[in-house]
Amino acid sequence: MRKDYLLAPGPTQVPPEVLLEMARPVFHHRTAEYRKLHEEVLEGLKKIFRTQDDVFISTSSGTGAMEAAVANVLGPGEKALVVRGGKFGERWGELCEAFGAKPIMIDVEWGKPADPEVIRKHLKDDPDIAAVYTTLTETSTGVVTDMESIGAIVRETNAILACDGISSVGAIPMETDKWGVDMLVVGSQKALMMPPGLAFLTVSPKAWKRIDARKPAAYYFDLKHARKSMETFDNPWTPAVTLIVGLKKAIDMINDRGIEQVWEDHKRLARATRAAVKALGLGLLADPPADCVTAIRLPEGMDGAALVKKLRVERGITIAGGQAHLKGKICRISHMGYAGDYDVIIVVSGLEMMLAELGYKFELGAGVRAAEEVLAGKS
Amino acid sequence: MRKDYLLAPGPTQVPPEVLLEMARPVFHHRTAEYRKLHEEVLEGLKKIFRTQDDVFISTSSGTGAMEAAVANVLGPGEKALVVRGGKFGERWGELCEAFGAKPIMIDVEWGKPADPEVIRKHLKDDPDIAAVYTTLTETSTGVVTDMESIGAIVRETNAILACDGISSVGAIPMETDKWGVDMLVVGSQKALMMPPGLAFLTVSPKAWKRIDARKPAAYYFDLKHARKSMETFDNPWTPAVTLIVGLKKAIDMINDRGIEQVWEDHKRLARATRAAVKALGLGLLADPPADCVTAIRLPEGMDGAALVKKLRVERGITIAGGQAHLKGKICRISHMGYAGDYDVIIVVSGLEMMLAELGYKFELGAGVRAAEEVLAGKS
Repeated sequence: MRKDYLLAPGPTQVPPEVLLEMARPVFHHRTAEYRKLHEEVLEGLKKIFRTQDDVFISTSSGTGAMEAAVANVLGPGEKALVVRGGKFGERWGELCEAFGAKPIMIDVEWGKPADPEVIRKHLKDDPDIAAVYTTLTETSTGVVTDMESIGAIVRETNAILACDGISSVGAIPMETDKWGVDMLVVGSQKALMMPPGLAFLTVSPKAWKRIDARKPAAYYFDLKHARKSMETFDNPWTPAVTLIVGLKKAIDMINDRGIEQVWEDHKRLARATRAAVKALGLGLLADPPADCVTAIRLPEGMDGAALVKKLRVERGITIAGGQAHLKGKICRISHMGYAGDYDVIIVVSGLEMMLAELGYKFELGAGVRAAEEVLAGKS
Repeated sequence: MRKDYLLAPGPTQVPPEVLLEMARPVFHHRTAEYRKLHEEVLEGLKKIFRTQDDVFISTSSGTGAMEAAVANVLGPGEKALVVRGGKFGERWGELCEAFGAKPIMIDVEWGKPADPEVIRKHLKDDPDIAAVYTTLTETSTGVVTDMESIGAIVRETNAILACDGISSVGAIPMETDKWGVDMLVVGSQKALMMPPGLAFLTVSPKAWKRIDARKPAAYYFDLKHARKSMETFDNPWTPAVTLIVGLKKAIDMINDRGIEQVWEDHKRLARATRAAVKALGLGLLADPPADCVTAIRLPEGMDGAALVKKLRVERGITIAGGQAHLKGKICRISHMGYAGDYDVIIVVSGLEMMLAELGYKFELGAGVRAAEEVLAGKS
């Protein structure tokens, strides 16, 4: 009977309308009915991703689409620049290594963004760098990166700019075409209000030029093969039909609201959460913080892993803890996708009660009050 | 208002109970709740696959798991034997080539099975062959291969036996351990009564020995990485939670019935379908035919592609046509998974009416009568 609340940075809550769409009977994918759906879904995704580039849907987690952005682009020994300021920046580096490429790591303090000028310098010093792998929002730290400035720099070179927007696109601004992002990776289970199982990848003409010139170490994630199927709105492999049906509904909900308004909505929830954090006397890990996930520094000496676990097991609220060296030191709260004012109130309230139980001294209710002030338009 | 019927060899029908399971709210995957589910699902799959080997769940189509069985096993220049007697045998060959391995193709006439003795000879003549890639049922032709005999031969060598059981396991006998299949690939959207989106792969100790000795050209499909996560029933990447929840329900339904009984059920439906085909004066493409999909030779000169399309568009019954050189010449009917007596009756009835419309001369109702005789236990 207990009501559970999912407020972790992925998977996130899925609207009941979308869940019920996915309970419709399965139909065949080599049909006009499916092709029409596929075409409509791609049109809807292009609006959200702000791109006219090709968009591909992969039956995989976001990592699969990241693999496509590496295995189709880099051959053995080829150089790439990798911004590494968290778990997901590390993943780009591991992917480059798995396929024999030579990643040049730009290590950034966890919680800080990449410095575009460092990227500029690397690209200037080494014209052999073929691709730059970045992360719009590091889910592990909650920091947001200035992709617009990075895009302006990479655009002037021959390198491809790939951006992991898995846990941010659909929640915060991403101007794929205007900013010059050549390959944007997005996941279904974050801001797009869907269960996990689908990933998306955009490919710019500049990226195609590079991809077309090589034989990839890829089959399932072979983009040239996918492009051929796409001509008739087919998938190279059997698509996850029920998820695509749900996706159509979720995309329509986002586009009915309008993506710019959806960005504003996320900003408002994030501001309310940050106001609550401040009122509780706690700090943020990230600078600047993203508007899709808030990473909170927990009180010195508190067992943060226990807090996250107790909150889930005893109070039904799922948030995320810290990863790697941040384990036990932070907690992470999502405002992505199907989240509203009362999701902020619930998670702040639950956090307050758990902080009190674990002995932290503060005025109970102060966080909720601060959040309400933002949500009521008073601050 | 029209009732539609999905009787193509994948995706297949999904029980309403399973569809509704997947409409339950999404929950987080790094939790005890998910790990318990994952553990139970693996136990259930092992019963269906008849194995004690490790079983992995991949968020992908079956092709993704096929890629795992190649990219983790073969390095550049290494030799593999590939049985190629249809679209899916070809896929094994393409996968080997994509990852730089050297496939030795055993070309088999479409509709005929691999000859175990040919495999024996190849393995004897060339001890460098590291793996043998086979297909239990070629979905493109409906033929079933004697995997038991092939297993007995490959077991005596150092080669790994990989078997594509995507469109057959769960419908027809597969004794993974007893027959010596080292890597079995299965898909969710066929006999397992699930929508597309998940694939499964077993890995035997013999296969592990080979995999452990090499660095794979893989990341998303890296089996060593997956094994590490599996120790705690975790997934390396965010799993498709809603599909896993549905899978648990589907597996339970199969295991409640008992896999041996489920094999018998499929055999009965296939026998009824074949009796109908014979009564209509038509022939089968495959010899021997599999009990999960029946490929029917259409009357000489008939436009088979039109038949399949009209049946779907005008009469609401989705079956499959022929692929490659069989385009327009055959149609393929599934009896996999959530299929019963009246699915056979419906599809035979629809086929009869369409054959009549397209000018084929036969006694209307003869196919249904022949099917009923089998289903009623009269023949």
